Amino acid sequence: MRFARLGPVGAEIPTVIVDGTHLDLRPVTADLGPAFFAGGGPDAVRSAVAAGSLVPLEGAADLRVGAPIARPGKILCIGLNYRDHAAETGAAIPEEPVLFMKDPSTVVGPFDTVYVPRKSVKTDWEVELGVVIGTKARYLDSPEQALAHVAGYAVSHDVSEREFQLERGGQWDKGKSCETFNPLGPELVTADEVADPQDLRLSLSVNGTVRQDGTTADMVFGVAHVIWYLSQFLVLEPGDLINTGTPAGVAMGIEGQPYLRAGDVVELTIAGLGTARQTFEQA
Amino acid sequence: MRFARLGPVGAEIPTVIVDGTHLDLRPVTADLGPAFFAGGGPDAVRSAVAAGSLVPLEGAADLRVGAPIARPGKILCIGLNYRDHAAETGAAIPEEPVLFMKDPSTVVGPFDTVYVPRKSVKTDWEVELGVVIGTKARYLDSPEQALAHVAGYAVSHDVSEREFQLERGGQWDKGKSCETFNPLGPELVTADEVADPQDLRLSLSVNGTVRQDGTTADMVFGVAHVIWYLSQFLVLEPGDLINTGTPAGVAMGIEGQPYLRAGDVVELTIAGLGTARQTFEQA
Repeated sequence: MRFARLGPVGAEIPTVIVDGTHLDLRPVTADLGPAFFAGGGPDAVRSAVAAGSLVPLEGAADLRVGAPIARPGKILCIGLNYRDHAAETGAAIPEEPVLFMKDPSTVVGPFDTVYVPRKSVKTDWEVELGVVIGTKARYLDSPEQALAHVAGYAVSHDVSEREFQLERGGQWDKGKSCETFNPLGPELVTADEVADPQDLRLSLSVNGTVRQDGTTADMVFGVAHVIWYLSQFLVLEPGDLINTGTPAGVAMGIEGQPYLRAGDVVELTIAGLGTARQTFEQA
Repeated sequence: MRFARLGPVGAEIPTVIVDGTHLDLRPVTADLGPAFFAGGGPDAVRSAVAAGSLVPLEGAADLRVGAPIARPGKILCIGLNYRDHAAETGAAIPEEPVLFMKDPSTVVGPFDTVYVPRKSVKTDWEVELGVVIGTKARYLDSPEQALAHVAGYAVSHDVSEREFQLERGGQWDKGKSCETFNPLGPELVTADEVADPQDLRLSLSVNGTVRQDGTTADMVFGVAHVIWYLSQFLVLEPGDLINTGTPAGVAMGIEGQPYLRAGDVVELTIAGLGTARQTFEQA
């Protein structure tokens, strides 16, 4: 299934997309948040679709596309998780996953405006495979158990301010949590429809110039390993978002370091998950 | 005012404590979460108390004490924010606030069990002044504006696993977000009842031995500076929690490094904000 949320910020309507049509999910759930995933919501939607009890959302084409999940309880990010990206930043390949966090309130829709923070000089892009947790995961015994805890996948943009991240006091979080810094979507594609999360092409362009073009096959630590690993340190809960790292091609790693400015347009695509596009403005 | 939340995990009843009695706040609000603070909840409670319209919560003395706020949208932590603590860890005094984050789901009640994570060998304590945001703060012009955005203060325990934090891949968050790692409370004391947040004695003992005994006067960056500073990088929202750093005396800095084990009892006190006490168990 493909889930979406359409409507104004804070008043998004949950939908499931069937044959290209957004079906209104409000008879099944108020939102696509932690309670929906924890309470067997996806199964309830599947039954409703099979029963033909859902109706199209009127005027869907004219509505803003929100992030396909409600605000997550937390956003966990894996750093330096593609060999070529680690190399371009001058970092070593990590021996185990590097974890940092983003403010959950940074999640915005896939076509929303993203703000270049005030006094920013190094706002950068990062296309990432976003993984949404479906069921609680705590001290998993092995990576083989991990993918059963995934609700689905989405295009995630881990927007980053490199000066804030690397030159302002030691921990990366400071450059990762600026307002609007995590566009997500357009859709959440359920795990059963993604044959292999380690075989997805992901790409990003800025003002039409392709900057990132990689594949999740090149992750240092795959999705299953990451989930298993994180579950040894913290509790993964339904609705949590994991950003699994970015391939090479960020501004920091390119000759001339063409960081983002107001007016720039970034387009992100992951095969099978859809395309997002954001215009940057000055905060 | 002094707010509390009493009852089982996930079903806490909000109260305001007047003359030592817990008054049931359910006629005013379902919970003490972001919506309560954003919607002028504290003013509504003040009016209800003045009108005498609230009644005591029956059986309050027999109820579990929960954290005094519902799950925050984010937990922001300031590292190395007391000179003596920076010195004991071998770190330099920061030139600007060091920011890291904790998983908001780590918040538990002030007398709840705290788990020593599996495979942990360096679980450590940190008593901290917890600051709860009352109104949205974004790009504040100066620290002078900051304290008006504070809802109140509470005793916060920034439990930390030093091996996970410092020896497992580069970013601190990994050792800060383990299950139950942020006991909070017993009470949220509203800002109007804290004459000077930079003049609070805070102390912590382990199994009856005093390990930390400091004052918020020794913060490198005071509460107002921290809020103003953070607002330059991210948006502070109602109900967010800021842990403002810990004074010297953590296990990492003590001869013999007496890290926490199952059975250890940690007691934390901040003058005017109350006392919390947690027993540690193996996860």
